[in-house]
Parts: sequence; structure tokens; C-alpha cells
Amino acid sequence: MLTRTCHSMRGCKFNTAVPALFLFALLALHRMQVAQGVWPMPQKMIQSSENYPLNPQKFSFQYAEDSVAQIGCSVLDLAFKRYFKLIFPDYSRGNDAGEPFSVVVSVQSGGCDGYPDEDSKENYQMLISEGQGVLVAETVWGALRGLETFSQLVYQDDYGAYYVNQTVIVDYPRFPFRGILLDTSRHFIPVQAILETLDAMAYNKFNVFHWHIVDDPSFPYQSYSFPDLSDKGAFHRFTHVYTQTDIHRVISHARLRGIRVIPEFDSPGHTQSWGKGQPGLLTPCYNGKTPSGTFGPVDPTLTSSYHFMARLFKEVNAVFPDSYIHLGGDEVTFFCWNSNPQVQAFMEKMGFGHDFTKLESFYIEKILNITVALNKTAVLWQDVFDYHENIPKDTVLHVWKGTAQEYNEEMSKMTKAGYRVLLAAPWYLNHISYGQDWHDAYTVKPLNFSGTEKQKKLVIGGEVCMWGEYVDATNLMPRLWPRASAVAERLWSDEEQTFNVSEAYPRLAEFRCRLVRRGIQAEPLFVGYCKHEYQGL
Amino acid sequence: MLTRTCHSMRGCKFNTAVPALFLFALLALHRMQVAQGVWPMPQKMIQSSENYPLNPQKFSFQYAEDSVAQIGCSVLDLAFKRYFKLIFPDYSRGNDAGEPFSVVVSVQSGGCDGYPDEDSKENYQMLISEGQGVLVAETVWGALRGLETFSQLVYQDDYGAYYVNQTVIVDYPRFPFRGILLDTSRHFIPVQAILETLDAMAYNKFNVFHWHIVDDPSFPYQSYSFPDLSDKGAFHRFTHVYTQTDIHRVISHARLRGIRVIPEFDSPGHTQSWGKGQPGLLTPCYNGKTPSGTFGPVDPTLTSSYHFMARLFKEVNAVFPDSYIHLGGDEVTFFCWNSNPQVQAFMEKMGFGHDFTKLESFYIEKILNITVALNKTAVLWQDVFDYHENIPKDTVLHVWKGTAQEYNEEMSKMTKAGYRVLLAAPWYLNHISYGQDWHDAYTVKPLNFSGTEKQKKLVIGGEVCMWGEYVDATNLMPRLWPRASAVAERLWSDEEQTFNVSEAYPRLAEFRCRLVRRGIQAEPLFVGYCKHEYQGL
Repeated sequence: MLTRTCHSMRGCKFNTAVPALFLFALLALHRMQVAQGVWPMPQKMIQSSENYPLNPQKFSFQYAEDSVAQIGCSVLDLAFKRYFKLIFPDYSRGNDAGEPFSVVVSVQSGGCDGYPDEDSKENYQMLISEGQGVLVAETVWGALRGLETFSQLVYQDDYGAYYVNQTVIVDYPRFPFRGILLDTSRHFIPVQAILETLDAMAYNKFNVFHWHIVDDPSFPYQSYSFPDLSDKGAFHRFTHVYTQTDIHRVISHARLRGIRVIPEFDSPGHTQSWGKGQPGLLTPCYNGKTPSGTFGPVDPTLTSSYHFMARLFKEVNAVFPDSYIHLGGDEVTFFCWNSNPQVQAFMEKMGFGHDFTKLESFYIEKILNITVALNKTAVLWQDVFDYHENIPKDTVLHVWKGTAQEYNEEMSKMTKAGYRVLLAAPWYLNHISYGQDWHDAYTVKPLNFSGTEKQKKLVIGGEVCMWGEYVDATNLMPRLWPRASAVAERLWSDEEQTFNVSEAYPRLAEFRCRLVRRGIQAEPLFVGYCKHEYQGL
Repeated sequence: MLTRTCHSMRGCKFNTAVPALFLFALLALHRMQVAQGVWPMPQKMIQSSENYPLNPQKFSFQYAEDSVAQIGCSVLDLAFKRYFKLIFPDYSRGNDAGEPFSVVVSVQSGGCDGYPDEDSKENYQMLISEGQGVLVAETVWGALRGLETFSQLVYQDDYGAYYVNQTVIVDYPRFPFRGILLDTSRHFIPVQAILETLDAMAYNKFNVFHWHIVDDPSFPYQSYSFPDLSDKGAFHRFTHVYTQTDIHRVISHARLRGIRVIPEFDSPGHTQSWGKGQPGLLTPCYNGKTPSGTFGPVDPTLTSSYHFMARLFKEVNAVFPDSYIHLGGDEVTFFCWNSNPQVQAFMEKMGFGHDFTKLESFYIEKILNITVALNKTAVLWQDVFDYHENIPKDTVLHVWKGTAQEYNEEMSKMTKAGYRVLLAAPWYLNHISYGQDWHDAYTVKPLNFSGTEKQKKLVIGGEVCMWGEYVDATNLMPRLWPRASAVAERLWSDEEQTFNVSEAYPRLAEFRCRLVRRGIQAEPLFVGYCKHEYQGL
């Protein structure tokens, strides 16, 4: 099977460098160690007990001759540099034993300067044998995943010497969308903590950073079209904002790790902070006949609201290269609209009666039209689908509510209606409880709803949500890691091979120590220790 | 009242520096701001809106002429250095405005080179007026508490200028014992993280570090009498041990902050790791007539066990200067003893029948005799009292089980029997739940049990326990702070002034930001921000 897959690739390095016979021999080897230390578990991986000492002084990454990516490829040049340090955390010590070893990378198609997007292929294959690792990937994004896997295959013995075992891997993600949401409105998360999160995401093969950048409490996005939004809506206009430079830095850091950045500008609800810098945008609430001084959702009756949104989204479209944009649409309350005479008049004029979901649908349709014009794929929280089934079919729906039974029913309905779906409901990891609650995150079955094969294919992936009510940079990392790692494996790996928590435990415990070694404050699963502990600040 | 208290002190600086008339005037001032920014809340504090700019270049700490502590006093010399930086985190910027300001410290009695202990007085008084703060304390430990309070009274305006308001404070702790337990057996906590915890404890006026240093999973205490204990019982004999130097460093760091270090060597249960380096210490468990290869609690039938314990505790006594030692005594299971023929024979010989609590009592009495001979006060977990009421009256009992009703009944019984009591049951802060669970820790009433005034006086304090099943240095700080701060206020402050969580919230939120500013990864209470956020690693 490996060789077949390999044959289908242009100028496959495997065939020239490694006789097929050897490959078959390897495949026939007794499985000495299953998926030693690789998290999330690769789709197919076979290792023998034969191992090769690695000498940092004689180790290299190289581009294969037939690779379309060569020296100068930003994504891989920088990945080689990064992974060298990750593989050899104490390489400067020097160790002259061991033969030269090269990891030869062959990228089959695509460029190095683009952004990862919904269609980016992340599959790769790897063969590690004496003196050489061969990594073949369709794209640079797949090559990144393979490098991560390789870095996890290397281990140190008690004397600090590095080794890697003879290994064959054929790997690809189960779902193309594997995301983490950070909420930077309820608490401001400094850029450094976001970059650190992106690093940890790459170690876990997550590939989407869903940036819930603004919400009721604060508006830290510094807009060049509407600077008042953050000047007045951020917690502080200088210290608690994301400048355009910050945002470019985040996007660039993410790109180099094969991670998409999808911004969310949630409306018409969750917009209290917007109102501070954009007077007239929000609906004034009334006490009887007089405005109460408080405000509700975006005012859907004014054309000025849509002009504003069109300009804002035009900017957002220019700033964020990803083809997706998250429009929110959740938890819109109606009491303020209901109190407002202008809204009441508009409802009457439009023939909406007293059904405010019609008004909300009217609003969302207008916003969707804006994003369609910008050629973006919209993502919406499930609320919009729940009251309004006529949304454009290429919209992605985001399931966030309820028990397994409830979200399964929801996914069944959505996919039956032909929508692509993202699952977040079981992965609100801001919620915590005492003990090994990663078990719950791990034993989710994202395709366990009733539906046809075609429906199941519409589930494009899932997302860990880290809402910010009780989370900022002080506790983000230990709350997210390694609990999100459980989700990483669910979204990448084969469910049948990875559903058992007892089997997963030692692998996850080892991976967590690897994260700690890499500087990520990942909390312990249970009693035990890491060879290299986090030392404290 | 302030002046009266002051009169009772030797050479009270207040009277000479500040006319009593002025003091009365201050006391009569309208309370402009109650306890602005001081956590835990002082017993008596009055502030006016009159404030004084502080210029770091013209600020000084000084010893009062009548102070028994003078330059060369290690505790205060170093505290001045530390608090200068804490008060002026960006003092190097320079700001030439403002008049000279001195905090004049007068210590009334006692030395500078001892260790804080159970009788150490922590009361202090402070008067802040134009150009001067006067801090009078009975001991250097009280002076440390006053310096902490002063550091929290200083604030910055939006331009970074420092101010302190006119203030009078009379302060003392409600309970003399305010502890935090760290468990360094289930996970190893590197020394650096312990020192950081001690820093945060000082900011919260905690005064006891209860070091649960060994337990079943590992034995990181490096004993000079029995080096095998950590060589074989630690997670790693070099990287996961506390050397004697490490321990001295912890004790010294704690001393300089007025914090006692009480080690716990828990036995006869919770000793699995001891058995590795001390063969013959633990009871061999039997399957019928043959040893099963597993071990139970310390073997109470062998004189060798007591010889070992006597030598170990002699060493511990020499290493840890505090007059208290924690002997554990919790959660002893009997099935292993019950399976062992030698133990059965011993039971018969002693006439214990099948009552293993008698055997346990026999063991504990022997251990207590050892510590009595060393002139130490023993602390025991409540279990020992629960099965054996005849323990020496000067033992301190540690309540850790059950609901409020249950621990209140326990405290009622213990104090009726004349024992001093420590409360930990409601403060197992390793347990977490989603949301503002500090409310539960805050609204505990430690003296709410039925009993006489005399009984209530036997409650010497309480303790936050941070057990290590799921905690190591990666998540220790955000799990402990600011949740432990809620307990700090309960144990220091007047319950009537500080029982309301809504009133406490803004003060605690502000204090939490102060902790973050000082480098402590204290997690947020709820939505909001700090002027200076934690930036990530």
C-alpha cells in the first residue's frame, strides 16, 4: 500500500532511494513498539526495534532533488531551523559518535509562499532507515506535519544520546479542519501568548486558529478604517490592542506552521464594545417611551449599520488571507429590539409580525451578502440555522450546544440539509473539573450521528473552544494543554486505533512531557514526573 | 485606641513624631476609601483622600532611632531592598517631582536572626502622613507584615506617578497559623517554584509553609542519614531530589519573609516510596501463607522500624528549625497488616484482638515519643484522633475531612478534649470547578462550631492544601492564586468586615493584578483586565 501511494506521486523518492523489497520487509516486521511517542497517532505506522544513533553534528535536513520546494522555501527553511532545535534541545553538548543522518524532504506540488487553506493537503509519508529519513509530502503543509512527526520519533537514552528507530509512516488527517478558538475580548491575550499557543498547536497538528477577536467586553482589533473601535472599545487603547503589525505577525507565525487564521467578528449580538467607538451602530433600548441609555444588538433597521459592516468586512478581508470568515450570529436577545419604537415600526413595515427571528434572519442575510461579495466562506454558530434554514448552502455551521444526543441530532439535521459542519460542543475546554477530564474530550465520536456516508463527509472537523471568562495568559497554557491534545488526536487519527483512554494515557503522558520540554506549560495528567520538569518562572 | 496601644510600647515613635491630636483628627476623618487595595484587609484602617506623591529617588526606608532592629538586621535590610522594587516596579524611569518620603520602622523587641515560630507576634501599626510613614511593630515579623501593607497602599496614576494616601492602620492576624501545603511527592516541584510560592505567600501574609515532602509516589528528601531513601525512592536521584542545600535555601527564603517551614513525614501509611531505600521498613503483604511481593504501611511490630524513625526524625529535627513537625497518620489501611502472620502474632501477644486501630495507636504513640524527646510539637491528621483519643494534649490536630457540618462537629469534639486545631477541610484548593469557586473558600467560618470561648481559642488557624495528583510547577501558580488569597483574608482579617463576596471582588481583582505585576501567574477572577498583563513565556 505504501509503495502504491508512492507510485502515484510525481518522481517519488522512495522508489529510487529504497528498494521496494526493503519496504515490504519492513512492513512485515513484527511491531516492536506501536506509535512510540507520536501524538496524534499516525494513520499507519510501523517501527522495528532497530535504531540509529543521531549525532547533532552530522545531522541534516535536505531538499530532495525532485522536490518542487528547494532552498529558499520560507516555510521549510525555517521549519528545518526550528525542528533542529526541537529535536536536539541540548545539541551544543556535542557527541561525536554516530554516522551522518539526513532527513530528505520531497514536496510534490504547490508553492512555499502561500497560505494554508481549506483545500491544503497535509498527507505525508516517511521512511526512516539507516543514515536517512525520507519524507514525501504533496505540499509544504504536509511536509511540516511530517517534520513534526519525525521530531517526535527521536528520543534520548539515559546518557543523552539521540536515537531514531527504523520506521515507516503513511499519514494524513481524518478531518481537514482542526481548530482552536481563543477569546481575546473577555481577557486580552498578549501576542506572545498567542504565538506560544500557535507553537503548541503545530506540535499537536492543529491547523486552524479561530480568533474570536472581539466581543461584548472589549474590542482589541485596531481597525484602520474605524480606529475609534479599539480607541474606545478596547480595555486600553495602547496596551490592550492588536495593531495591524501584531495581526500580521500572528498570521505569519501561523502560516509558517501550516495554521490558518480565521477571524470572528460576531454580530449582531455580542457587540457591546463596538458601540463605544461607533455611535449609532447598536440598538438603543427603551424604558417605555424613553431611551434607557443602554444598548442592544446591532440596529438591523438602519442602512448605516450595513454600510459600516461592509467597510469593516472589506478591511477584515484585506487583513486576513484565509478564505473563511466567522460571522458569529449566536445568542441574540430580543428584549432590546422589542423595546425600541423604530424597530417595532420596521417589523411592521417588513411584515415580520412579532417574530424577531425574522428580523435576525434579515440582518444575517445582509451580512452574508457582504461576505459573499468578498468571496469568503462564512462560518456561523448553530443559532442561525436553528431559526432560519434558508442560509446559503456553502456556509459552514458551527455546532456548540448541548449534550452528545443534542449535538448529534443537530449535525444530522444540518448535514441532511447539505451544510458543512464543525463540531465544538463537546470541546469547550475552558470548562474544567477535577481529575482526568481529558477522557471526555477524547472519547467523543464526531460522526456518531444518524446520516448517510455523504452526510458524514460534510463534517469538516472540530474545534476546541477556550472562552475567556476565566482565562487569560496566566492560566491559558495549563488549561489548554494537554487537554486539547486529546482533541488533536480525535481530529487527526483513526478513531478505531485511538479510542481507548488507558492505551492513550502513557502516550499522552509522554507527549505532555515533550511539550513541557519545548517550553509549553502543559499540566500533568496524573501522578508522575517528566525527565525535564518545568522549573517555574 | 491607636494611641493607647502605642503607649503600651517601649519608646513609641508615634508619640514623639506625631501629635496625638493629629491622630485623633485622622481617626475622625470621613472614610474616603475603605482599605484601598490592601489584601488581606487590615483589622483597622482609616484613610483620607489626602495623598502624597512618592518620588523613588527621594524615597527611603529607615530604622527608627528607638528601634531594637538597626542596619545589619538581615530580615529588614533585605526586606527594604525587596519592597523598594515591589513598590516602584519602574523606578529607574526617574521622576524628580515630589518631596522626600521616609518609611521609618521601629521594632520593639526580639532579634533579627531567629526563625518565626508559633509565638511570633505579627501585629503592627502604621501612620502615613506628609513626608513620612511610621511603622511600629513588636517584632521584625510584624514589621514585614507592615511593609507588605505599605507596598500595597502605594498606587500609580495614569501617568505612572506614585502616590500614597494619608492612612492609619492597626493590624494583627486573626489566627497565628496561616498555612499552605505543597505536595512534592506526587509531583516534584522544583525549588524555584517553591520559592515563588513563598514570595506569593508573603504578599498574602501567609506564614506557614507545610511541606508535604514525601509520600507514596516519591521520596525527594535527600537524607544524610539514609541516602538510599531518595537514591531509590525519588523519581530521579539527581534531578528530582531536594538536597540539604535546597532545603536550607527554602528555609532561609521563608525565614526572610516571616514564614515557618513545617515538614511532614507522614507514616505509617503513605510510605510506599520509603520502602525502596529502606528494605524491611514496610510490612510485607501476604497471599495466604506466602508474601505477595507488595508492601503495606510501616511494620509496627519491629523495633528496627522505631530505630529507623528515631534516627530519621533526629535528622529532620536538626534540619528544620521550626518547633512543629507534621507526622501525618492519615489513611492507614489494614488489609496488609491483617494478611501478615508476624503482625497477627504481635496483635495476639499485645492483646489487641482484631482491632487494628490499637496497633496503629501503638505505632503513633511510639513515634510521638520520639518527637516529644526532640522537644517538637507534633501535628497529626484528624484520623489519629478519630480512633484514638488518648494522644498527648499538646499535639495539634489537623482537620481535613468532610462537609462544613462534619468538620464543625470534629472541631467541636477536638477542642472539647482540649486539643489545638488546624482547619484544612474546606480549603483543598487542588480541587477545582468552573467559575468563581473562590467564593466557597472565602465564605468559610472557621469558628462556627458549637463550643465555648475557650474552645474557639484552640483553633490556631487553617491551611490551604494543594495536593499533587494533578498539580506540578506547570499549573501550580494559577491554581493556587488568587484562590488561596481568599483563604488568606479569612485567616488574617476580621470575619465581620470581610464576609461579603461582592464587596471583596473588586479588592481581590485589584490584588490579583498586583500579584501579576509582581510576576505571580495568578489567574483572573472573571472578565476584565490588568493594567500590566502577564505576557506569556
